[in-house]
Amino acid sequence: MSENGYSDHKLMFSKRGTGLVGQEMFKVLDKAHALESQGIDIIHLELGNPRLKPPVGVVEETVNQLQAGNFGYTSSAGLMGLRQAIVDRYNRLLNCGISVENVAISPANFLINQFLDLVCDPGDRVVFFSPAFPTYWAAAANIGLEVEDIQLDPKSAFDLTRADVDRAFASDPKAILVNSANNPTGAVYSKEVLEYLSDECNRRGIWLLSDETYVEICYDGPCHSCVYDTGSYVVVISSFSKLFSVPGFRTGYVIAAPEVIDKLVLSTSTQISCLPGFTQLGCAAGFEAIDDYVVSISERFKKATSLSADIINNSGILHCSSPKSGFYVFVDISRTDMNDMDFCQKLLEDHHTAVTPGRSFGSAYLNFVRIATCGDIDDVKEGVRRLISFAAILAKSDVKVAS
Amino acid sequence: MSENGYSDHKLMFSKRGTGLVGQEMFKVLDKAHALESQGIDIIHLELGNPRLKPPVGVVEETVNQLQAGNFGYTSSAGLMGLRQAIVDRYNRLLNCGISVENVAISPANFLINQFLDLVCDPGDRVVFFSPAFPTYWAAAANIGLEVEDIQLDPKSAFDLTRADVDRAFASDPKAILVNSANNPTGAVYSKEVLEYLSDECNRRGIWLLSDETYVEICYDGPCHSCVYDTGSYVVVISSFSKLFSVPGFRTGYVIAAPEVIDKLVLSTSTQISCLPGFTQLGCAAGFEAIDDYVVSISERFKKATSLSADIINNSGILHCSSPKSGFYVFVDISRTDMNDMDFCQKLLEDHHTAVTPGRSFGSAYLNFVRIATCGDIDDVKEGVRRLISFAAILAKSDVKVAS
Repeated sequence: MSENGYSDHKLMFSKRGTGLVGQEMFKVLDKAHALESQGIDIIHLELGNPRLKPPVGVVEETVNQLQAGNFGYTSSAGLMGLRQAIVDRYNRLLNCGISVENVAISPANFLINQFLDLVCDPGDRVVFFSPAFPTYWAAAANIGLEVEDIQLDPKSAFDLTRADVDRAFASDPKAILVNSANNPTGAVYSKEVLEYLSDECNRRGIWLLSDETYVEICYDGPCHSCVYDTGSYVVVISSFSKLFSVPGFRTGYVIAAPEVIDKLVLSTSTQISCLPGFTQLGCAAGFEAIDDYVVSISERFKKATSLSADIINNSGILHCSSPKSGFYVFVDISRTDMNDMDFCQKLLEDHHTAVTPGRSFGSAYLNFVRIATCGDIDDVKEGVRRLISFAAILAKSDVKVAS
Repeated sequence: MSENGYSDHKLMFSKRGTGLVGQEMFKVLDKAHALESQGIDIIHLELGNPRLKPPVGVVEETVNQLQAGNFGYTSSAGLMGLRQAIVDRYNRLLNCGISVENVAISPANFLINQFLDLVCDPGDRVVFFSPAFPTYWAAAANIGLEVEDIQLDPKSAFDLTRADVDRAFASDPKAILVNSANNPTGAVYSKEVLEYLSDECNRRGIWLLSDETYVEICYDGPCHSCVYDTGSYVVVISSFSKLFSVPGFRTGYVIAAPEVIDKLVLSTSTQISCLPGFTQLGCAAGFEAIDDYVVSISERFKKATSLSADIINNSGILHCSSPKSGFYVFVDISRTDMNDMDFCQKLLEDHHTAVTPGRSFGSAYLNFVRIATCGDIDDVKEGVRRLISFAAILAKSDVKVAS
């Protein structure tokens, strides 16, 4: 034993323990909090943390349930009332004929891990179309999966083409993850390509996770949901974090074949038992106002995100494709001649602005950073100004900085 | 494709997917809810779902935070205020010299899974002293661990002896799980045996998870916490579900070496991102009243649990050891000549009382059921009456049924 009572053994962790990488933006958040605890004001563009009011009823009902003492255990599948609300809305809007047996409640981030663990063994191959959400990489590293990284073309605004999908199938994967509307690029993939992808997955017996967290936050009307084509192998997830602007509720849902739902419910039961009842009932209450709410937040996010993209593209140094959805801008910083990690660290420490390094979205993106535009609009504008101003110093060239 | 659009492929899941068993008491809860939805009143003794008011401040502060709009993302390690409150209390009560680097926030049930995944690879051996909490078995089955099941002696009230610990070490395990105060038996293991266990684990480099969910709910004063002996290999978990009677908050904590905490935080970041801030701040607010609260609920649980055990032991048919902690009674039903699954199903369907089958706690316990005594006292008494009455019918013998 060493002096402090700790064993002198070198601690040995499992393969999964060794493969843990986490999500970079939560490390950025911790660093930002550490600076804030020293009294420094930080502009937060690192996380998709909407600062909007949730739909009327969500917080009120959550509070009602808490005050009524509703904090016991609940069903591992999620509360029936919330599952039914999801079913009714999907059937009303998409006429897709699902029932409560097709739906379970779980945090969306957890569902990515649950899905991959359910269908893949260590060493199995999965396809990501990159840039791809950090949790996909973190989950694959944790489980020990081989990732076929199909890099989308920045010149066509990171759109997904039929050729990309054919490349995915050519790698003979166990599973494919697709994310339209996309985080971090704001791309919206076409109905034709998504239908081809989901139809072929069902025909070939390849698992497809369609992450539709941002599917309702599109600037030019609704984009395609793979729920239309749900077959046995197509699993759709979404999140109330973005739909209702309540990321702290940690509540999402999955739509899939009943046999898949049964397995996911056993996974939830094993790992986290169940979710709180009060937050689920709060989410259920939000369904009355949801249609108008998603239109209104989409308009707001369009404005802030398009404005940010325009300022960035007018800077003469930084560049991005123009998002068609969501509230992120994936910014090319290659003209600064600084890699993403150093750029993010310096920007945070010297310019008090937190953004997420591009490598979180795939190893090809060391010359990108992601900013989130869902916070207070003045903060977003000031953050973008600092981003460009810092890039200008690095590039030592004449640039336009938005005031 | 079949008629309903689903693929004709037989769905193939991963090894982990195939190994999912879940927690039986949540299946019982679902069956009970199904009966309730038909208008039938059910007495719930299947889950440790305390119906007490939480300490003053917990709900109030949670509501305050919600109303203030505090539902963004938080640190994956948990909020510093809650971690510090835990540190301060342990250092004050146990003088154990821990700091915030030794503490992370995560649901306690999830921590069991996170711990096993962090230290064990599939095929590794773990020791459970049985009867053992269902999540241990479910997590081991999911991960693919080999369980060395060391059955404790019902004749000595399922106490843990030094000989049991030596048997554990003789099996050369990667990890050992220990749970004192114990669910489901109510046993409290001696300081001497627990110290021997944790010292030897640290000396031998064997991981020890000490599940101390019920450590403060002891009838004859505080019982031993392995936090006293935390070394690199000893990991302690507990849960606000029982400490504050808020299982629906899904919030617990872990105390361990900083290197282990770092890994667990990466696991939380990867899998569930973070926990809600409002519930964590609610829990932090409860620390002002916690010392008096745990004394008061322990007295209450002692009364209900001891009464239930006495009625059962006086029945002449059912039998249990007398719990020294917690709010469960592990009931021997062998004189009914019915196995636990059939017994639970019949008791629920015909006598509208939900209890948990013994096999959830290990394959040796097919002639046991577990009841939870933490609900409304009149419900508990009525539930116990029905349990004995049903057992009497089965045993077709003269029995005393408490009125």
